[in-house]
Amino acid sequence: MLTEIPSWGEMLRVLVELAGTLAFALSGLLKAARKRLDPVGVCVVSFLAAFGGGTLRDLLLDRRPFFWVEHVELLWAMLALCVLAMLFMRQHHLEVTEKAIQWPDALGLGLFAATGVHLALNDQMPMLVAVLMGIATGVFGGVLRDMVCNETPTAFSDHQPYAVCAFAGGWLYVGLWWLGAPDWTALLACVVVTAGLRILAIWRKWSLPAWRV
Amino acid sequence: MLTEIPSWGEMLRVLVELAGTLAFALSGLLKAARKRLDPVGVCVVSFLAAFGGGTLRDLLLDRRPFFWVEHVELLWAMLALCVLAMLFMRQHHLEVTEKAIQWPDALGLGLFAATGVHLALNDQMPMLVAVLMGIATGVFGGVLRDMVCNETPTAFSDHQPYAVCAFAGGWLYVGLWWLGAPDWTALLACVVVTAGLRILAIWRKWSLPAWRV
Amino acid sequence: MLTEIPSWGEMLRVLVELAGTLAFALSGLLKAARKRLDPVGVCVVSFLAAFGGGTLRDLLLDRRPFFWVEHVELLWAMLALCVLAMLFMRQHHLEVTEKAIQWPDALGLGLFAATGVHLALNDQMPMLVAVLMGIATGVFGGVLRDMVCNETPTAFSDHQPYAVCAFAGGWLYVGLWWLGAPDWTALLACVVVTAGLRILAIWRKWSLPAWRV
Repeated sequence: MLTEIPSWGEMLRVLVELAGTLAFALSGLLKAARKRLDPVGVCVVSFLAAFGGGTLRDLLLDRRPFFWVEHVELLWAMLALCVLAMLFMRQHHLEVTEKAIQWPDALGLGLFAATGVHLALNDQMPMLVAVLMGIATGVFGGVLRDMVCNETPTAFSDHQPYAVCAFAGGWLYVGLWWLGAPDWTALLACVVVTAGLRILAIWRKWSLPAWRV
Repeated sequence: MLTEIPSWGEMLRVLVELAGTLAFALSGLLKAARKRLDPVGVCVVSFLAAFGGGTLRDLLLDRRPFFWVEHVELLWAMLALCVLAMLFMRQHHLEVTEKAIQWPDALGLGLFAATGVHLALNDQMPMLVAVLMGIATGVFGGVLRDMVCNETPTAFSDHQPYAVCAFAGGWLYVGLWWLGAPDWTALLACVVVTAGLRILAIWRKWSLPAWRV
Repeated sequence: MLTEIPSWGEMLRVLVELAGTLAFALSGLLKAARKRLDPVGVCVVSFLAAFGGGTLRDLLLDRRPFFWVEHVELLWAMLALCVLAMLFMRQHHLEVTEKAIQWPDALGLGLFAATGVHLALNDQMPMLVAVLMGIATGVFGGVLRDMVCNETPTAFSDHQPYAVCAFAGGWLYVGLWWLGAPDWTALLACVVVTAGLRILAIWRKWSLPAWRV
């Protein structure tokens, strides 16, 4: 997507994608560490958490080359991150808490959802598809992360609003886009609302309705 | 696939695809509910069970746009189905039985296998590939459903004939197609035989040979 | 990839691919058997272990038709292999040992990593991407195998050098290719080093550094 003449929206989107990737990689790294995977596992799970969502998005939208081929520096950074993190973790006995995972996760969710919706709309996808693509981009990395760790994805089982936040943010993006708002406004609004809702949900301990079966 | 001039076979295939999608969504919904997933999880698992097989098929056959992009109404229907089902389940304490899952599953299996073989043959795939594509289309949704629910896919472990039925039905389709029978005959035959065998297998309690290792 | 005029490197690569496919199928077959899957599950897991890595590679590199469509005989052979193996296992109470799995696995790893790097470089992928593609091609089949069997992939959790061997072998390939060495040299070197390191690791009981979290 960088072959187009870079506009402000473009630039912002790329920065957003970098930040989101880092946030997710971190969440994957912590989860893998808590699961006592070996160094290779830690790297792979970090990679999956970071690039899984975006790769699924590119695969479904049939976008080539993948964003991590266009930006190999991303992969190098990821590799460095994993190695450093593991060395660091070996030295200092790092207490890995749920909280430590949830915060970068909330950010990444918003960032990825926004890019997903953005690219889907650019490809003339229907609104609902664009929103679902946003959710997939934001959630699939974490889902893959949990599945590889042989757990039921927390996104689907912990009764906390997660994908729902991306759903709300995604529709906000589509709405603003439909009203003709500039890309960067829609992007920013989507990120802020999605991440904001997610953090509110954690802070307020909101939970999705349970149900008898 | 709807860009072609719709013929009877085309029409039938689309209807067949709709029915199959609904059947699988239901099986996913019930499984997720039994697994006590949260509402988001229930929706996602229903989506995966319903669209997983067809999406894999389109991905492997490199067909774009996906059938659920061409028919966004499918996604809307699914969303409505999930919400309604969850509201319904909240009110009436619904007893979810294996049986309730197996029947729509049997139908979906036959319907999806048929469409898979049909599209693969249209793309000049070799016969065996077409049959395997049919099996994948019919089985993968359920496999994804079980994997996300962190279970060994029942299709591979419960010693009941399942994929085998699709295998038989698929070869029947290929055979009729090879004999130059019209699409709708082959489709119908494949659906009837596959679903029929599956239901017979359940009713007669057929089981695949176990083995010592 | 067989549409190009076959060269020595090409020929070798194809043979390599066949051997690797067989090796992985076997590892999948044994794992599924140990997991007490039913015959269908055994076949599917063998297929996934054998074709999963290569298919992911072709999917990510956007290569069509898949190598198992170009060589349907591969699928037929696999089917025959599974049926024969199951008949054989039914008669003779076969003791399935870790060792029996690890050896073909080591070979397959080297063989697949080499083909993955080879094809990625042919598609002008950046070096790191090529290496990662090699690892993915070599490891993903086994990962899929374990995930379907509802286990945390051993490649990520058993603290044994596995993907790491492919990483080393892959960089060796890239290095030789960068120095302008002929394909078959690079291929052979990559296979020998990767498989060799893996076998050494098993024999010497090397293990990746564990770490406190």
